[in-house]
Amino acid sequence: MNSFGTLFKISIFGESHGKVVGVLIDGCPAGLNLTKEDFFKDLNRRKPGQKGTTTRVEQDIPSIKSGVFGNFTTGAPIYIEFENNNTISKDYSNLIKHPRPGHADYTSMVKFGGFGDFRGGGRFSGRLTLGLVAAGVIAKKLIKPIKITAQIVEIGGVKENFDAVLNKAIKENDSLGGIISCTVENVPKALGEPFFNSVESLIAHGIFSIPAVRGIEFGAGFSHSKLKGSETNDLIEDKDGKTKTNYCGGVNGGITNGNNVEFKTVIKATSSIEKEQNTYNFENSRVETLKISGRHDVCIALRVPPIIEAVTAIVFADLMMIENKIPRVIK
Amino acid sequence: MNSFGTLFKISIFGESHGKVVGVLIDGCPAGLNLTKEDFFKDLNRRKPGQKGTTTRVEQDIPSIKSGVFGNFTTGAPIYIEFENNNTISKDYSNLIKHPRPGHADYTSMVKFGGFGDFRGGGRFSGRLTLGLVAAGVIAKKLIKPIKITAQIVEIGGVKENFDAVLNKAIKENDSLGGIISCTVENVPKALGEPFFNSVESLIAHGIFSIPAVRGIEFGAGFSHSKLKGSETNDLIEDKDGKTKTNYCGGVNGGITNGNNVEFKTVIKATSSIEKEQNTYNFENSRVETLKISGRHDVCIALRVPPIIEAVTAIVFADLMMIENKIPRVIK
Amino acid sequence: MNSFGTLFKISIFGESHGKVVGVLIDGCPAGLNLTKEDFFKDLNRRKPGQKGTTTRVEQDIPSIKSGVFGNFTTGAPIYIEFENNNTISKDYSNLIKHPRPGHADYTSMVKFGGFGDFRGGGRFSGRLTLGLVAAGVIAKKLIKPIKITAQIVEIGGVKENFDAVLNKAIKENDSLGGIISCTVENVPKALGEPFFNSVESLIAHGIFSIPAVRGIEFGAGFSHSKLKGSETNDLIEDKDGKTKTNYCGGVNGGITNGNNVEFKTVIKATSSIEKEQNTYNFENSRVETLKISGRHDVCIALRVPPIIEAVTAIVFADLMMIENKIPRVIK
Amino acid sequence: MNSFGTLFKISIFGESHGKVVGVLIDGCPAGLNLTKEDFFKDLNRRKPGQKGTTTRVEQDIPSIKSGVFGNFTTGAPIYIEFENNNTISKDYSNLIKHPRPGHADYTSMVKFGGFGDFRGGGRFSGRLTLGLVAAGVIAKKLIKPIKITAQIVEIGGVKENFDAVLNKAIKENDSLGGIISCTVENVPKALGEPFFNSVESLIAHGIFSIPAVRGIEFGAGFSHSKLKGSETNDLIEDKDGKTKTNYCGGVNGGITNGNNVEFKTVIKATSSIEKEQNTYNFENSRVETLKISGRHDVCIALRVPPIIEAVTAIVFADLMMIENKIPRVIK
Repeated sequence: MNSFGTLFKISIFGESHGKVVGVLIDGCPAGLNLTKEDFFKDLNRRKPGQKGTTTRVEQDIPSIKSGVFGNFTTGAPIYIEFENNNTISKDYSNLIKHPRPGHADYTSMVKFGGFGDFRGGGRFSGRLTLGLVAAGVIAKKLIKPIKITAQIVEIGGVKENFDAVLNKAIKENDSLGGIISCTVENVPKALGEPFFNSVESLIAHGIFSIPAVRGIEFGAGFSHSKLKGSETNDLIEDKDGKTKTNYCGGVNGGITNGNNVEFKTVIKATSSIEKEQNTYNFENSRVETLKISGRHDVCIALRVPPIIEAVTAIVFADLMMIENKIPRVIK
Repeated sequence: MNSFGTLFKISIFGESHGKVVGVLIDGCPAGLNLTKEDFFKDLNRRKPGQKGTTTRVEQDIPSIKSGVFGNFTTGAPIYIEFENNNTISKDYSNLIKHPRPGHADYTSMVKFGGFGDFRGGGRFSGRLTLGLVAAGVIAKKLIKPIKITAQIVEIGGVKENFDAVLNKAIKENDSLGGIISCTVENVPKALGEPFFNSVESLIAHGIFSIPAVRGIEFGAGFSHSKLKGSETNDLIEDKDGKTKTNYCGGVNGGITNGNNVEFKTVIKATSSIEKEQNTYNFENSRVETLKISGRHDVCIALRVPPIIEAVTAIVFADLMMIENKIPRVIK
Repeated sequence: MNSFGTLFKISIFGESHGKVVGVLIDGCPAGLNLTKEDFFKDLNRRKPGQKGTTTRVEQDIPSIKSGVFGNFTTGAPIYIEFENNNTISKDYSNLIKHPRPGHADYTSMVKFGGFGDFRGGGRFSGRLTLGLVAAGVIAKKLIKPIKITAQIVEIGGVKENFDAVLNKAIKENDSLGGIISCTVENVPKALGEPFFNSVESLIAHGIFSIPAVRGIEFGAGFSHSKLKGSETNDLIEDKDGKTKTNYCGGVNGGITNGNNVEFKTVIKATSSIEKEQNTYNFENSRVETLKISGRHDVCIALRVPPIIEAVTAIVFADLMMIENKIPRVIK
Repeated sequence: MNSFGTLFKISIFGESHGKVVGVLIDGCPAGLNLTKEDFFKDLNRRKPGQKGTTTRVEQDIPSIKSGVFGNFTTGAPIYIEFENNNTISKDYSNLIKHPRPGHADYTSMVKFGGFGDFRGGGRFSGRLTLGLVAAGVIAKKLIKPIKITAQIVEIGGVKENFDAVLNKAIKENDSLGGIISCTVENVPKALGEPFFNSVESLIAHGIFSIPAVRGIEFGAGFSHSKLKGSETNDLIEDKDGKTKTNYCGGVNGGITNGNNVEFKTVIKATSSIEKEQNTYNFENSRVETLKISGRHDVCIALRVPPIIEAVTAIVFADLMMIENKIPRVIK
């Protein structure tokens, strides 16, 4: 249940305040040039630092412990590990019986009978997405020249002037949601394995694994309800299948048509806020006030674009391998 | 790739104008009372008949050919078949080289090298959803007292007065999209298997297998971009985990919290329209006019609610089996 | 649990005295020429008829109901069905409470709470192997020029003079076991996906699904216990990897080395015998005499070679697809 | 391909002379008491030390890096790592072009295009079985009171006097094979998921992943060829399903019958021998003499019993979870 993919398969594990978080990648072809340096760009994009992000900063140095030999992948499983160093576990110790609203504290307690590692959100922490980004770096190299670009297009309901809404939220000890668009260019045709493993099914499956995602739409998405077939049918213009418009988002019948794949993802406001909230205290059976100090992102959506790119790249790597478009040994 | 599920697993097959469409259900517990009559209600809800739906009407009589003995499931795979009888294949014969915009004609031709059964959309036809509905009927019986209700809440951009917009579209030889809401009541807590098999991931995976779906959102969905954490954190009110609001849609950290699971799905306008469209003709290498006669739904969204309920029930049956909440033999 | 394979995946279903037995094949490439006639040779080899086999003879006409269009596979799931016609269910009606030794009657009753279709062994009948043979026919066409040959090499402990031991067993109302050898020629190198999906692991997994199999050994098999490394190390002789001997059975480290893959399978004596046996009667809680009339194979091993070939072909088709050695569209 | 299991799923990775070997265990229930000390007994049984085993001795200290909190499993993936310290990689550097007979050197070179980590056998080393043993320790705790015992019953063709044959082989710079028996006691009935996931299929699948295994047989195994149905039908004696004999090895129709599960495994002689062998040199295209110095086990079978127990325990844990016989939270 912690694995994703058919031929290019990743497994995610670790906890926020445990020793490590990591990813195991099974099925990566041999012969792909891979060094530690390949990871830094996307890992840095995911890191906090900009306005509206947490003050917990980890080094996030990937340690490649198997599957790579002499800077080339070997065809064996690739294990990549990240240490957790900057953890302040005392912040969380009194929250066990008083679950934070919006978080997985309560559902985790019920599901795992209180045995979960609650520190810093444990396995439900956004920190586990490090493994996604690392796997995505490898996937991006495999699927070249496919190019995936995700970016934030809306924060707190506005499409520009992000600084102003962020400053306001910081001042109010509150948090904000946002929308991220993702575009995939240079897409090979014929990717996707309907009935069930349509391109949209696999991307959505992966994207909803990212904490805080509440929706996904392809092409014109929810606007399709307002549009007619004569408006949204993307007319084919040439022998390469190029379409005049792209209301469908580059996928017909679950299979890529060679035009850009386009989708949007909505991220809810960070659940951890310093503002006071009422929530049930299971120890004394009363609704009580909770104020979450710790270190939090005001708008977690700001850090999600590289994660969305990674998930998308992982899906495309898998689909390309299934469609025989990536060799088992890269030369 | 045509299978879905871990313990309660379904496989879909058949073609629009082939001999049959069907579903194979693997993992259904033994001892569930099951008769042909159980299927009619949902199959009828999926059938055309109301305004805005196609004139191709099939009997849709389920033939249960294995896995049921003396009106009870045996624990062996259940195979359910539906015959295709009312097929008029001449309607489609000249469309091979002139792919219909919005359909999978072009992507299917590229992916399967022209070997696909193109008649009536072949395997990409909405007719394959019969198997989903049939499997959903079984799943719904398994997961009782969970109650799943999907209904259309928007057509052609309006939330009421559906008759008027449908009449207008019929007159214009055009088609309309719509939005369907789905609510799951009496939800057990602790369902969902993150990291990757979160409740949302699995529902979205299944829902995007339904032809014409372009988006899905849970709880407040895309509105989360406009809302603050202090607004969308669902405050726990009592020892049962009941929350004051349900912005998250009943799921935290990918796991059900016991409140209703709520999501919305958008369905694009039917691709087949009688109105003239231009599209590329691969035989003569020219953009040419296409007019699709055949028999089509003006608004396919009207027929999708029972399919969405079915997919949701299938996901819940699987998750409940994984969580040991359904016995292997029902007594 | 009734499916097998990763990219070339088959699902088996049906019951001995139900309406049908069948197989669903998912992942078969498009463009493979396939007609009903392709199936008859192997289906006939599996049929009874020769000395030592049952008198229940079915037509075994395959009905291809999806995934093939104009005599070519379409890339969609292929569903093949066989009707059960020559069933005499009264033979079995009084055996419910008095389980036959050696059969799955007792384990099935415990596992499925008595809801199983007990007629003729239900889903545990050798009749379900029809689907394996049918899927194997397709697999054999896909993996050409690989050639798979299974044959019986031992019956009742003798390596020749089979007629004599069979006659004796018939006379004694008893049954016999046997050993079947299988050789795979023209094997591509590099097939097999260790750690867990070694060639031997996958073949053994499939072979042990065949009813009555009790053992499998590759190359020198159990003789390896008596042999030294200096004897069993197969020395490479030329640049193509040809080895002087083949003690390993054509596989090193779970991966084919290009030499013949060779293995042997042992089949136990048919459990159904007319000779009287004592076994527990769960109705009256006494050990009582049982005499199984019905129609049975004296030596079921005689009918198993085409089934073993089929399973082997299915494994090789899957491994070749994973290794990119079979295109997604065959031309 | 490096994963095994459905609900209790393990993934194996690492290389003989890489930084680590390890195992990732997904699906282990929460609440199982687990400490480092639990692992030592089985890890020590797998370690060399006795006569006939290698002089490479590693500490084999398990480092549990995720999934355990306060000495209890959390329900999250458990990652266990072993460092490689005692590696002497120069031993192997000149063997790249001159593959060792019996090893995976040649097949690995072909499959992975020469990119594999060849040092010490890389991923094909028996060292990877450490992860199996570690996962088996957890599985054994989960499936209590099931008791699994594997032991060596034959070496070099003899069933006793092992010291003598080992001394002789050491003196001759040769190696020996052996046979290991495995008995599972206190077996719950109804485990096994035929058609394809029969108990034998799953055990055989796992067992053939262990390097050097060449055969497996259940109950009377290959003797079944010599035995009649009247001899091998295990007669049920009482209401608990106890049988008079156990020729079938405790499984009927792929499902446990409550009697002991019994099987034997044959292990070939260690491929690495100091004795001179001829094999092809791909650099100079000649058959040349090879003498493997390094550090090797004379009879690797001696170290395999705890590995066979581990694989068996892993299969039983998975099957018991599927059959709802292990709760998701252990109390």
